[in-house]
Amino acid sequence: MSSSSDADTDKKVIVPVENLRAFTERVIVKAGAKPAHAEALAELIVAADHRGHFSHGLNRLDYYADGIARGLNASDKEPEITKQGPSTALVNGNNCLGPVVGKMCIDLAIEKAKSTGVGWVCATGSNHFGISGWYSIRAMEQDMIGMAFCNSSPTMVHPRGKKRLLGTNPICVAAKGEGDDEFVLDMATTTVALGKVEVKHKLGEQIPMGWGVDADGKPSTDTGCILQSGGLHPLGGKEETSGYKGFGLGMMVELFCGVLSGSKFGTQLGKWTDAGFDSMANLGQCFVAIDPTAFAPGFQGRLSELIRQIKTSEPGEGHSELLVSGDPERAHIQLCQGLGGIPYHRSQIEFADGLADKYAVSRLMTA
Amino acid sequence: MSSSSDADTDKKVIVPVENLRAFTERVIVKAGAKPAHAEALAELIVAADHRGHFSHGLNRLDYYADGIARGLNASDKEPEITKQGPSTALVNGNNCLGPVVGKMCIDLAIEKAKSTGVGWVCATGSNHFGISGWYSIRAMEQDMIGMAFCNSSPTMVHPRGKKRLLGTNPICVAAKGEGDDEFVLDMATTTVALGKVEVKHKLGEQIPMGWGVDADGKPSTDTGCILQSGGLHPLGGKEETSGYKGFGLGMMVELFCGVLSGSKFGTQLGKWTDAGFDSMANLGQCFVAIDPTAFAPGFQGRLSELIRQIKTSEPGEGHSELLVSGDPERAHIQLCQGLGGIPYHRSQIEFADGLADKYAVSRLMTA
Repeated sequence: MSSSSDADTDKKVIVPVENLRAFTERVIVKAGAKPAHAEALAELIVAADHRGHFSHGLNRLDYYADGIARGLNASDKEPEITKQGPSTALVNGNNCLGPVVGKMCIDLAIEKAKSTGVGWVCATGSNHFGISGWYSIRAMEQDMIGMAFCNSSPTMVHPRGKKRLLGTNPICVAAKGEGDDEFVLDMATTTVALGKVEVKHKLGEQIPMGWGVDADGKPSTDTGCILQSGGLHPLGGKEETSGYKGFGLGMMVELFCGVLSGSKFGTQLGKWTDAGFDSMANLGQCFVAIDPTAFAPGFQGRLSELIRQIKTSEPGEGHSELLVSGDPERAHIQLCQGLGGIPYHRSQIEFADGLADKYAVSRLMTA
Repeated sequence: MSSSSDADTDKKVIVPVENLRAFTERVIVKAGAKPAHAEALAELIVAADHRGHFSHGLNRLDYYADGIARGLNASDKEPEITKQGPSTALVNGNNCLGPVVGKMCIDLAIEKAKSTGVGWVCATGSNHFGISGWYSIRAMEQDMIGMAFCNSSPTMVHPRGKKRLLGTNPICVAAKGEGDDEFVLDMATTTVALGKVEVKHKLGEQIPMGWGVDADGKPSTDTGCILQSGGLHPLGGKEETSGYKGFGLGMMVELFCGVLSGSKFGTQLGKWTDAGFDSMANLGQCFVAIDPTAFAPGFQGRLSELIRQIKTSEPGEGHSELLVSGDPERAHIQLCQGLGGIPYHRSQIEFADGLADKYAVSRLMTA
């Protein structure tokens, strides 16, 4: 629930969604990607910023372009199915861009779910795939329950340990109710994602206990220390508040990703830096689609009723409403619709202009 | 990780596993259950106490027997498949005992996974099914990844709310590595299960912040208040430590259970009391089996390597080792093996004797 629907949107620059899509494609094609791959990446980047997850959108375009330009990601290959059954597939991403691999995998899972009720597809040889929500939502848009999981560079510290052993290993589950009702859970299995600590560190702001630990594995509120020598708490925090459950969920994600697919996993994964991974990522990912019509009729009505139960429940002091997973992102999409595009800080536009100049393509068009 | 391997086991009474199994069957058959149903329940009860989850074993036998004796659970029916596809099934539990429904469902999921790679089975019309681990482990023992989910009476309070909206809604995932290596995650999506607060309340012991809230939804350490008028925090606790993620996971479980199956869900579920539910439970449950051989060869070796990465990592101050989900339960099973049976407090044996007298069956034989 980390949308950034700041009140000061009038100080921002508005970029129509189509302009962002076109700009992303220009950059990434110029960097060396195939048009179809650029299209997948552009869809992902647009979805991230549209949903308010700015850390995973335009902000990462430089990283993706650089991966293609430097040959760290394959630009001349396609992901391929190396094994499949009626409800399963193993896909070798062949080091293609993460969204290229992920889009193929979730579409394959949807196809299998339409035929057998469930599709469970694991990818090896993949790369950073941005927001997990984009994949699950593709399935949701076809009336499926969609799920996506990804392993990532070690940042999570065990409640009894001091070293980084697992990544932020996200879990995403999306499903549609009646009308506009949606449930889109898209969460790191750490208390917060690393980016949230980085933002607080840059702003010099205080963070609460429960986000991270120091180099000795002790709970800390020192953002510099958490980022440099410590790491992130699993969801639940320390042992007495059940941090071992968050760690167990992180392991579950690794089970579905690296362990099922044969990619790298756990501490084998390279260190993530601002410049990307320091070696070929070989990430593991997992994509699931479930067809609700294979079960009791009336799925969407029941999901809406569950959402209604929550949203009509009396809020506690200081709160005006109870949110359901995905609500902050929906609010951000509505904000964008009202503004006629995505609101960016000027610094982000300057960043995009720099990127345009670097790849000698025309700049991002603002409204 | 709530095993109870007390040091004072010599003050306890040892009950060989076979004796517990036979006693459970005697009581439940006398209460009116079919022998095959009694067998399923006995297996579950033995597994719970053997694994150290005493709140879900012999301790609950009175409740199960009472449900049969009073006709709250069906004793003359069988669960039935009402709809199925290659990888899915919807089962009507027909109000049979939870473990009778659950055993049929996980076995069906395993069968489907052997054929298509994945089996996803949802149950409606079910009852309390004890420890989720028992179902997942059945799948694990056949070299599958096993999963089990269950909805339950509202106890979880939304981070912005004050009312109980979701149950402790457990997630269980089990998989086998090489040799004795196992990963058995069996967790409530609340910070702790209700029983853990009840135990602390009875003992008059302090609990940490982060377990529950008062009637206004404010974090509280007052166990009486949490139990009577407040409720449980979702995993993650309050909003600043991402309690909305635990709430989202609770909703995900409800999506798989009540929403997919058509059982009761959310606030529709009856209140749980010591005497069981106050009306027909109509719980929803979900059972999944995934065949790792449908993916990359070497699954068990990789899982063992992941476990090794964690267990060989340096512990923080005050800790001797890092635990993996399921380790405390394995330690309890080893303790039982050394003792030649399950260690019980005398009060638990007296409780069993009372039950034996009530149903006029021979008493539980101790070692």
